Amino acid sequence: MPSPGSAGLPQDAAEDKGADFETFTRRQRQIYMEAARLFVAKGFANTSMGDIAEAVGMSKAGLYHSIASKEDMLYRMIMFGLDDFEREVMDPARDVADPRARLETMIRRHVLNICRVNEPGGNPFTVVVNDTVGLSPERTAEVNARKRSYHRFVRTALEQLQAEGRLAEGVDPAIAAFSIHGVILSIARWRRRNGRLSPHELADEIAGFCLRGVLA
Amino acid sequence: MPSPGSAGLPQDAAEDKGADFETFTRRQRQIYMEAARLFVAKGFANTSMGDIAEAVGMSKAGLYHSIASKEDMLYRMIMFGLDDFEREVMDPARDVADPRARLETMIRRHVLNICRVNEPGGNPFTVVVNDTVGLSPERTAEVNARKRSYHRFVRTALEQLQAEGRLAEGVDPAIAAFSIHGVILSIARWRRRNGRLSPHELADEIAGFCLRGVLA
Repeated sequence: MPSPGSAGLPQDAAEDKGADFETFTRRQRQIYMEAARLFVAKGFANTSMGDIAEAVGMSKAGLYHSIASKEDMLYRMIMFGLDDFEREVMDPARDVADPRARLETMIRRHVLNICRVNEPGGNPFTVVVNDTVGLSPERTAEVNARKRSYHRFVRTALEQLQAEGRLAEGVDPAIAAFSIHGVILSIARWRRRNGRLSPHELADEIAGFCLRGVLA
Repeated sequence: MPSPGSAGLPQDAAEDKGADFETFTRRQRQIYMEAARLFVAKGFANTSMGDIAEAVGMSKAGLYHSIASKEDMLYRMIMFGLDDFEREVMDPARDVADPRARLETMIRRHVLNICRVNEPGGNPFTVVVNDTVGLSPERTAEVNARKRSYHRFVRTALEQLQAEGRLAEGVDPAIAAFSIHGVILSIARWRRRNGRLSPHELADEIAGFCLRGVLA
């Protein structure tokens, strides 16, 4: 299994690090984004590698040069999204000692992470990363393990708050962690381009809703 | 367009009302449920009418006798789910005058509606009803209009609460309505068969989280 960090494409650019790295990453992101947009609009099974190549202005052969199959594309895309998520959401939150502040950091950063992509129909990338129907069973298990570690991270913050008597009475930390995740992920499906609220205003709303929802 | 109530199958049973009506409805529900399970497990595009016929022990010809196409199956299934939702969730809530109690009625009943189906991987029926990628544009528009009326109903309750000074400061009723919906729908994806909490316990948790999230 290739490490997620090296799951780069096109291959040539991936091998030529240094000055080209940023260009490479931008291109890679664009390919994943167009593929995600097609997967959400037409469904994974109805989208061909040819459709993706056409959408990003590459030849089909060029796309197959660096990606073995459509399933491989989906896998790399999901790993890329989870890497982004860990770097932008999880890593900064890990350093926050107070569990309430840690939870708030995660919620706000996750909302901003989702709002960074703002297509007419929401954020197709987040939708695809969270809908793994096209993956092989082995890769589904690998992706689910990474998602579980996020769930555990949120639940642990909630359990700490509960031990300190700071949660509302009767709150179940596991259910609350799923609920917080559900609120945030749903943004990818309903937020439209040029929404009324800025990403930071939306982060305020969502953090307020979730924190009031769990805190005493 | 056929009315949703008459979108019955198999056709023969639908024409023979009365004593057979309950059996018919149970059979119809079973067909939709098996189809939803297949759509979620394999994807809509990867599921054939033959797969569905096999899963419910019908001949493919028998299935095509009452349903014109796979898209038609998806459409009827979604309409059936929305009818259920209106009868079990919206109609009882309409009669509740106090907006807080109305909101709580809707949340609890929606959670119970989702928990009624409890497959190993969650509730595939709710997942499919909320993912309309296989529908024609006309039918997508029709389904979305029904969903918008639910969104408006929740938002109106929140606006009433805000006008009465009963919402937490800064809550945006439209965003809060999306958030409440996001929490509830996510249950269909994470709740497993024989979950730790009973449906009513889960309804308590979700109603508590959402009401604390919005109320002053």
